[in-house]
Amino acid sequence: MIVIMRIGCSQDDISRVTNRIVDAGLRVYMPNGVERTVIGVVGQSFPGLRDALESLPGVDQVIPVARPYQLASREFHPEDTIIDVGGVTIGGREVVIMAGPCAVESDEQLMLTAQAVKAAGANVLRGGAFKPRTSPYEFRGLGERGLRILAEVGGEVGMPVVTEVMCPDDVDLVSQYADILQIGSRNMQNFVLLDEVGRTRKPILLKRGLSSNIQEWLLAAEYVLVQGNEKVILCERGIRTFENYARNTMDINAIPIVEKVSHLPVIADPSHATGKWYLVPPLALAAVAAGADGLLVEVHPNPDLALADGPQSLTFDNFRLLMSQLLPVVEARNRKLAISGVRVNP
Amino acid sequence: MIVIMRIGCSQDDISRVTNRIVDAGLRVYMPNGVERTVIGVVGQSFPGLRDALESLPGVDQVIPVARPYQLASREFHPEDTIIDVGGVTIGGREVVIMAGPCAVESDEQLMLTAQAVKAAGANVLRGGAFKPRTSPYEFRGLGERGLRILAEVGGEVGMPVVTEVMCPDDVDLVSQYADILQIGSRNMQNFVLLDEVGRTRKPILLKRGLSSNIQEWLLAAEYVLVQGNEKVILCERGIRTFENYARNTMDINAIPIVEKVSHLPVIADPSHATGKWYLVPPLALAAVAAGADGLLVEVHPNPDLALADGPQSLTFDNFRLLMSQLLPVVEARNRKLAISGVRVNP
Amino acid sequence: MIVIMRIGCSQDDISRVTNRIVDAGLRVYMPNGVERTVIGVVGQSFPGLRDALESLPGVDQVIPVARPYQLASREFHPEDTIIDVGGVTIGGREVVIMAGPCAVESDEQLMLTAQAVKAAGANVLRGGAFKPRTSPYEFRGLGERGLRILAEVGGEVGMPVVTEVMCPDDVDLVSQYADILQIGSRNMQNFVLLDEVGRTRKPILLKRGLSSNIQEWLLAAEYVLVQGNEKVILCERGIRTFENYARNTMDINAIPIVEKVSHLPVIADPSHATGKWYLVPPLALAAVAAGADGLLVEVHPNPDLALADGPQSLTFDNFRLLMSQLLPVVEARNRKLAISGVRVNP
Amino acid sequence: MIVIMRIGCSQDDISRVTNRIVDAGLRVYMPNGVERTVIGVVGQSFPGLRDALESLPGVDQVIPVARPYQLASREFHPEDTIIDVGGVTIGGREVVIMAGPCAVESDEQLMLTAQAVKAAGANVLRGGAFKPRTSPYEFRGLGERGLRILAEVGGEVGMPVVTEVMCPDDVDLVSQYADILQIGSRNMQNFVLLDEVGRTRKPILLKRGLSSNIQEWLLAAEYVLVQGNEKVILCERGIRTFENYARNTMDINAIPIVEKVSHLPVIADPSHATGKWYLVPPLALAAVAAGADGLLVEVHPNPDLALADGPQSLTFDNFRLLMSQLLPVVEARNRKLAISGVRVNP
Repeated sequence: MIVIMRIGCSQDDISRVTNRIVDAGLRVYMPNGVERTVIGVVGQSFPGLRDALESLPGVDQVIPVARPYQLASREFHPEDTIIDVGGVTIGGREVVIMAGPCAVESDEQLMLTAQAVKAAGANVLRGGAFKPRTSPYEFRGLGERGLRILAEVGGEVGMPVVTEVMCPDDVDLVSQYADILQIGSRNMQNFVLLDEVGRTRKPILLKRGLSSNIQEWLLAAEYVLVQGNEKVILCERGIRTFENYARNTMDINAIPIVEKVSHLPVIADPSHATGKWYLVPPLALAAVAAGADGLLVEVHPNPDLALADGPQSLTFDNFRLLMSQLLPVVEARNRKLAISGVRVNP
Repeated sequence: MIVIMRIGCSQDDISRVTNRIVDAGLRVYMPNGVERTVIGVVGQSFPGLRDALESLPGVDQVIPVARPYQLASREFHPEDTIIDVGGVTIGGREVVIMAGPCAVESDEQLMLTAQAVKAAGANVLRGGAFKPRTSPYEFRGLGERGLRILAEVGGEVGMPVVTEVMCPDDVDLVSQYADILQIGSRNMQNFVLLDEVGRTRKPILLKRGLSSNIQEWLLAAEYVLVQGNEKVILCERGIRTFENYARNTMDINAIPIVEKVSHLPVIADPSHATGKWYLVPPLALAAVAAGADGLLVEVHPNPDLALADGPQSLTFDNFRLLMSQLLPVVEARNRKLAISGVRVNP
Repeated sequence: MIVIMRIGCSQDDISRVTNRIVDAGLRVYMPNGVERTVIGVVGQSFPGLRDALESLPGVDQVIPVARPYQLASREFHPEDTIIDVGGVTIGGREVVIMAGPCAVESDEQLMLTAQAVKAAGANVLRGGAFKPRTSPYEFRGLGERGLRILAEVGGEVGMPVVTEVMCPDDVDLVSQYADILQIGSRNMQNFVLLDEVGRTRKPILLKRGLSSNIQEWLLAAEYVLVQGNEKVILCERGIRTFENYARNTMDINAIPIVEKVSHLPVIADPSHATGKWYLVPPLALAAVAAGADGLLVEVHPNPDLALADGPQSLTFDNFRLLMSQLLPVVEARNRKLAISGVRVNP
Repeated sequence: MIVIMRIGCSQDDISRVTNRIVDAGLRVYMPNGVERTVIGVVGQSFPGLRDALESLPGVDQVIPVARPYQLASREFHPEDTIIDVGGVTIGGREVVIMAGPCAVESDEQLMLTAQAVKAAGANVLRGGAFKPRTSPYEFRGLGERGLRILAEVGGEVGMPVVTEVMCPDDVDLVSQYADILQIGSRNMQNFVLLDEVGRTRKPILLKRGLSSNIQEWLLAAEYVLVQGNEKVILCERGIRTFENYARNTMDINAIPIVEKVSHLPVIADPSHATGKWYLVPPLALAAVAAGADGLLVEVHPNPDLALADGPQSLTFDNFRLLMSQLLPVVEARNRKLAISGVRVNP
């Protein structure tokens, strides 16, 4: 940590700062000859100290030298994390395609969709049983019945399944059915929930919060990692900006940035990022071109009648078309599409 | 709901839209003579229908006529909601001052603070026992021990107490100690938690999410109201903007806007909105000048050594100074400072 | 325009609105049977009327039916605009690559760069002579000398040239040298400048403002179009978001959205969008995968020593590598790279 | 400037950085014993060097120690700047009220308004002659005729006048009529225009850009100051946020922050910040409570019929009411309302 003093600060101001650092059990170094007094802090500092120093008289800025996350950082863990889910690998050379309806509505709906997306090349089946909704008046999912359908269909078709868990009490229940636990963007900073899924050994698909920056996202991942669960898959799903033609703005920059600063795999969800089905294919291609390790795409047999998020779902035909366009882009990045996996939970 | 068609859409496009509306059990009206075809929807529509219509061919925009929240809306409930907490009224002519440390650290710390803020004119005692933290490496509060200290000190000094509840499982526990339950900004869209506190009959202090707009905030309040709990106090605590000198930007606009569109009381938290103690007094005065029904202010006996958020806390002296500056501003708005209340929970 | 009244508004409120509309020379229609009173406005309304109606008592919202731009809109002009610049076509099946240094520094620097980027497949030469800088203490470009170098090198190498014009007085001067006039993002709403370049018959490369939405961007294009200059090329160059690892966030969503709502070509500038050279290739690939009609890329013989924006410039080697990766992505979109053009200005 | 290296960077990486610094004519210091290698730069560095160092291998971050503005900074100029305009002082103990219509429409309109606002206590008359408009189809002002009316009415009534100048060519013309030159928010980074008004000796009212942070705003002020014009009045006029009930969000935080980091006076424009007349009074009171040195308020004899921005204008009655509410808030801050001034230009 480095403390930069104001021009014209007094000797007392400087002593107050150095004393405060020493009181905290750390050491001080003070280089000479710069434009203004700069005080270096030696040792393992902590967030509260930064704030405390910043409010002392004569202090201009306090600059943390270390990034606040460690387990999620590529500096401390240079090799890519590769996560195996029933034979599908995420974060390596393969590009994984997770597809399925926003919400599980019925056996038939999910079975039809699973067969169609698997035939087109998808590797993991998605489907929501618990749905977070901005308004209390909207459809909130089938609950445990939805989980059961998801697990059965995944087992029959031969695809691992991913679904969202919304509160700490449901982690055990959802873990009985799902191969990957999804944390939704509104829960990215639900720290009690992050602790709880960190205690499982399931892969965690962690969506980025709508207005979170990458550091906060990696700190949320750190909550999971610090509990001993090393299988975190980051998922960019659009951020809030001033443009509101689409529901959100896919932050494509985030994909190569995460690749640079973290070893965790990162995938993209163009369906939630745009909210409009006709924007999904160009954004899906863009995400993979930028280096995403996979996609999470909504597909529905009849999007117009879907109980949730129909207008952002692809039809089976559109999904097949997307998969055919995707292949040359995947190859242009010197990668390949993942092969099929199987359900992990029996 | 009103559907606006593109110029040059076909008769088929129009029929597809009107059929879809009729299939949903609603009626259609189609005025003549405007620049383009406009289709009105008569009856109680639902969010999914909007999205479905928006994705049909030939449709330019779909515009909801009704606001999506009702119980929180002033249109449906023109009179101000006034909430009584142990004799302190919130949302009426009185301006209520909630003050105390960010986190409860010890009996002495809290007792000293409670006595000081009460003597200076505060009406409600605040103090966190469960603290949400962006990083897993920071102090997370004393838990139930903190709740017990808070309740005891509130009882002795004679002040109702407010504290945060972070997960559904803790609602019963926190309700045994607190007079007002606080929902933090990161949990504004934790819908399971909103349902749960909606089932209590405690006043709920609902902080606005960092990047939420007012409609989303009122929809979060709607989650509580729809469960039968009518005692929601909104709390503006700063939003995220591109300016980062202060931690957040207090959205003072929100105060008169909420007053216009909702009947719920709205207070302001200048401590979290700024993160710097020297910005708290000007923002506190501004909030009350703009019409806030109260303030939530952090005060600490020794902010420099506080375990959480020290640099945004006022000393006792600075809090007394703020209270003296506040009085003429309160009177300029033709209001008065609230008188002291008592603990509601025995 | 549609006026939505509040529930419980009075008959007087309604009359005041309808009178105001009729006074403005327009007609009114009032459908029956909806949840609340809705008043339609028939005829060519104007922006001031909307605001005026919105502030009348009893009015809840006023909703414009028409988009505010017309000449830039695909509704009014369904066919793609294709712009020819010395044999390079922009907005058709070809993907155009504009490359060169941020600022023109010397004959040698520009000649070396032009030869290298042309050999690698670039079609248009870029180079700044007038540079807008956030701080008054930074390098502001060579001015007319830079223009002269740019034109000469473009002529010799056989590439049309694009450069920025920063103020109305310079439009004539810059037009004597440049084949395409660039309007920078900070000038997107410099309306006097837009008027002035609209009066030329040069192609205009219009960068999106850092915090502008797409409607404002198209309204800025409308300023140029309304003067009779139909050759506007839109350029997405990153928007401001809360993420600050990179300088800006490339809004990839904007590319397919612009394609949907406007007939104007749209290209992407990954160099300014990211500010870091190693993020340029993934973002360039992503933009083309999403459907961009071209790229604007900074290339410099020695980026480390560049007078402006060095760290976002590619070396010649990195540019060649990007071009080789780009080809399969271009083909995956069923497009082709543009062939070389020539200088238009003699 | 301080360069922070990555953990595990090589000795070569470190040498490359130190050589680059020395090549730029600066010196290096390297403290020992911290968590990672940190390299200090001694001497007057420049922005390009920061970017260059940041892109070298092994470098994690480069942190500027000095703020990039100097003339606008309170560190270099601790005393408040107080600007006299015809006897009205701005930036001292007085709170100045600038009022008038958005656009000058006619002699009568302006004379009526000027008499009314002066009688109610306003000190400076505002009125636009050149209006920037987002759409090319809106009213753009009376031009020089508007300036003449403004100057005449100001002279007759006895009030200094403020009006906007939109392009460098108009600076001389507008200077002949106006006592204060206003730079609009869309021109905050129109650097050619800033240079030009910096060459006059008129007070400059510099509005903050819609999405600018405070540092960029002060750098824009620096453009004026560096030309030798020390009379810059900053004006907060609302920023763009995700909330869109009001046109913009008044950044009240900015007022005490500017007071802390700069010596320049700062006023607030609640009319443009909200776009709705009924939000103007609460925001005006809030701005003054937060420490603003003045207000810029739109007032119109008949807001409903105004050619520009009618709905955000106060009627004469509402303006008088605001002034009466303002007085106790001004006194609560231990300040006083400014007395009347006179036209400076004959």
